[in-house]
Amino acid sequence: MATSASPALDLVVASRTLAEHGVIDAYGHASIRSEKNPERFLMPKNVAPELVTEGDILEFGLDSEAIDARGEALYNERFIHGEIYKARPDVMAIVHNHSHAVVPFSCTGCELRPIFHMSAFIGLGVPTWDIRDAREGTDMLVRSAELGAHLAKTLDRFPAVLMRGHGSTVVAENLPRAVGRAIYLDLNARMQYQAMMLAGPGGDVNYMDAAEVAANVSWQNYERAWRLWQQKAMARLAAEKS
Amino acid sequence: MATSASPALDLVVASRTLAEHGVIDAYGHASIRSEKNPERFLMPKNVAPELVTEGDILEFGLDSEAIDARGEALYNERFIHGEIYKARPDVMAIVHNHSHAVVPFSCTGCELRPIFHMSAFIGLGVPTWDIRDAREGTDMLVRSAELGAHLAKTLDRFPAVLMRGHGSTVVAENLPRAVGRAIYLDLNARMQYQAMMLAGPGGDVNYMDAAEVAANVSWQNYERAWRLWQQKAMARLAAEKS
Amino acid sequence: MATSASPALDLVVASRTLAEHGVIDAYGHASIRSEKNPERFLMPKNVAPELVTEGDILEFGLDSEAIDARGEALYNERFIHGEIYKARPDVMAIVHNHSHAVVPFSCTGCELRPIFHMSAFIGLGVPTWDIRDAREGTDMLVRSAELGAHLAKTLDRFPAVLMRGHGSTVVAENLPRAVGRAIYLDLNARMQYQAMMLAGPGGDVNYMDAAEVAANVSWQNYERAWRLWQQKAMARLAAEKS
Amino acid sequence: MATSASPALDLVVASRTLAEHGVIDAYGHASIRSEKNPERFLMPKNVAPELVTEGDILEFGLDSEAIDARGEALYNERFIHGEIYKARPDVMAIVHNHSHAVVPFSCTGCELRPIFHMSAFIGLGVPTWDIRDAREGTDMLVRSAELGAHLAKTLDRFPAVLMRGHGSTVVAENLPRAVGRAIYLDLNARMQYQAMMLAGPGGDVNYMDAAEVAANVSWQNYERAWRLWQQKAMARLAAEKS
Repeated sequence: MATSASPALDLVVASRTLAEHGVIDAYGHASIRSEKNPERFLMPKNVAPELVTEGDILEFGLDSEAIDARGEALYNERFIHGEIYKARPDVMAIVHNHSHAVVPFSCTGCELRPIFHMSAFIGLGVPTWDIRDAREGTDMLVRSAELGAHLAKTLDRFPAVLMRGHGSTVVAENLPRAVGRAIYLDLNARMQYQAMMLAGPGGDVNYMDAAEVAANVSWQNYERAWRLWQQKAMARLAAEKS
Repeated sequence: MATSASPALDLVVASRTLAEHGVIDAYGHASIRSEKNPERFLMPKNVAPELVTEGDILEFGLDSEAIDARGEALYNERFIHGEIYKARPDVMAIVHNHSHAVVPFSCTGCELRPIFHMSAFIGLGVPTWDIRDAREGTDMLVRSAELGAHLAKTLDRFPAVLMRGHGSTVVAENLPRAVGRAIYLDLNARMQYQAMMLAGPGGDVNYMDAAEVAANVSWQNYERAWRLWQQKAMARLAAEKS
Repeated sequence: MATSASPALDLVVASRTLAEHGVIDAYGHASIRSEKNPERFLMPKNVAPELVTEGDILEFGLDSEAIDARGEALYNERFIHGEIYKARPDVMAIVHNHSHAVVPFSCTGCELRPIFHMSAFIGLGVPTWDIRDAREGTDMLVRSAELGAHLAKTLDRFPAVLMRGHGSTVVAENLPRAVGRAIYLDLNARMQYQAMMLAGPGGDVNYMDAAEVAANVSWQNYERAWRLWQQKAMARLAAEKS
Repeated sequence: MATSASPALDLVVASRTLAEHGVIDAYGHASIRSEKNPERFLMPKNVAPELVTEGDILEFGLDSEAIDARGEALYNERFIHGEIYKARPDVMAIVHNHSHAVVPFSCTGCELRPIFHMSAFIGLGVPTWDIRDAREGTDMLVRSAELGAHLAKTLDRFPAVLMRGHGSTVVAENLPRAVGRAIYLDLNARMQYQAMMLAGPGGDVNYMDAAEVAANVSWQNYERAWRLWQQKAMARLAAEKS
């Protein structure tokens, strides 16, 4: 794994990288499970990801409440994180996002499939969650532990879950993997859309097969990309301070 | 609501934010109704939005004429603003724009529908106005109070109106909401286009339902985004001055 | 018309503006007819448009040869300009470009039509030229006066001509108008593509009618945009010098 | 040919140019055959292309191993380069990339054809390689000389080879030509996609013919573009050092 100065700084890098790639705009958030205490996770206070600095990172319990909120507002959808960390001991990092190319797949019954080798994890399965199956007439936000638990149940053992008319939530065993998966989920959606259009109705698209997916997912942590993202985010932080 | 230094500075933030998102280029404009006098509104003089500074903001009457033009040229289409403020006492801010993904919907009879939760307001209804219904053979611009009033009539009680072959005009109870709606109208159009292509002719797209729209629109002021837009616009202004 | 420091500086603004909008990349070029001598025109030496400075501007005769080349290489396709200035006394500025959304229209027999009011000039007619009709087996470049004259004949009295598998050449009575037309030709192509996809085979798209085109084209010089483009280009030039 | 300070610096320019054009992101790599020793080639160590500096350039043998790795990690897919240099004495430069518009063509049986004159080389033929034809169940990466040789066999005498679900590898007689071909392969894919959509199923697209391809490919080294890319890359390098 790529080196890291601290989990909080890693979250700053992740937040700014996701914003730079257009995977999140003012909305969406990344979190990381505490290495010291698996019943805790780190996430920014309620602030746009491209503005996040180390001082904005708070510690949360698995009830998705801040251990010490310092009077700061919290993300409404923090329950996505707590409930997934509860249900999935293997998950160490989570990215919730609204990346644009993914939403049309969440609304059409078209299944995302792995068309691009950097997006192999999609071959592990990406279910779609419709908040209406949990509750009718919501504002579409995962504003409670109950809704978060329902989402986590649809996520099940998979690496990502689409959220109908909303976006997706992506999970992984480490933060660079979660960030890379969120970025390449969006790119896969763009490429798959174009391939489906080229192939036409009933046409064949040649996706990765299960053995290829397995061979790729076993090691893919987007390490070279993470080192690039670190360097660029740190340069931006330094420029802001000067 | 997010804090504001002054209505004029808010308009500078709005103008530059809309330009940065490609919702307006050299054309399009934002306005805000005066908090002191509901018969007045603020809008820049005739200048490209990404160049607007506080000194460019003029006060207008509901006849869409400047109270004191200071010898400056005015936007040809200022009548959009005056006539809507006249017809809609609830409207406190207006954005007229040419965002690119929206125009194809204005020319094809395809109805914009709320596919993305950040764009829930579309579910309140977005009619399309064809200037030809008001007058034949125009240059497509809303150059008079008469044309502005005709547009305002089609806008009716809705949050936005598409203008055939031209763009749209978006309204709201406050400026951050109007700016956010203009940005997410464009994003919804992009996502809906792709969903319609994926679904194919006669295919089903799963839109937000009326209860979801109502639950979301009641509170959605794009506040976290507005704070981001403020910070970025103020940083650009400071850089220009230095 | 917007003010101008000098025709050479206007060409610098035009070149950099077209590059910034992606209408030209390293290729493509803008020219302007001399106001002093209608048998002369100004165009940069062979250099990428986003690098052009005032010192790169040379004067050409209508034979498309430089009056004084100062030992500099010239654009291979300079004959586009000379031959059009010869054939069209009304033309004062020309932009040759490869804008990406336009090329598919040049290869498919789909006619560009005015879908967007900023692109009204398309309604005057935009023919397509296939270099094969002039000569078989070329490298697709307009490398001679003979090929330039053939292109000019297809351009005829129209404001632009598509070049099959290559791009387009846009003309106007002044430089801001030529630059604006090149930019909005590309945007119209993007919007028309999406509208045609939304409408589906045999579907109706609601284009501007002839009276609307005439009313718009009569005055449209993209003046507010030109002032923006000037200011941005001059700021970049100043930054390069410092 | 455009001037060059040194082969290593040319590789820095190539790497950063490809990244700036989105042809490569953190992944993909360019190499150049040694002018002094045709059994050697130059390529960066394992680093994201937009971070490459001269000090990162290593020398490799045709076995794709570094002559002196200086303890640095190497690209997993370096075998693409060694095996092609072995099989193709005419090749002096190689770009392996994941450009996004190309992948859908690699998965659908749609043949890339030369629609844009800057992309004429596509008319020489661009085969598609499926790694499954060499070995089942890989992680899709060309991690061995055996896989590299298999790819080189499909590349055959052609200027580029698509790699199913992965990207492409582009070759040329010099580095500017290889970089230009990688960039214009992607642009051709975008334009061809749109032309195919406009033409509809069974519709005609008017591609370059064989004589036009031959006349263009004979000289096309993207020289004006290379000078632009050099100037921009050198400016970025200077800014990073200051």
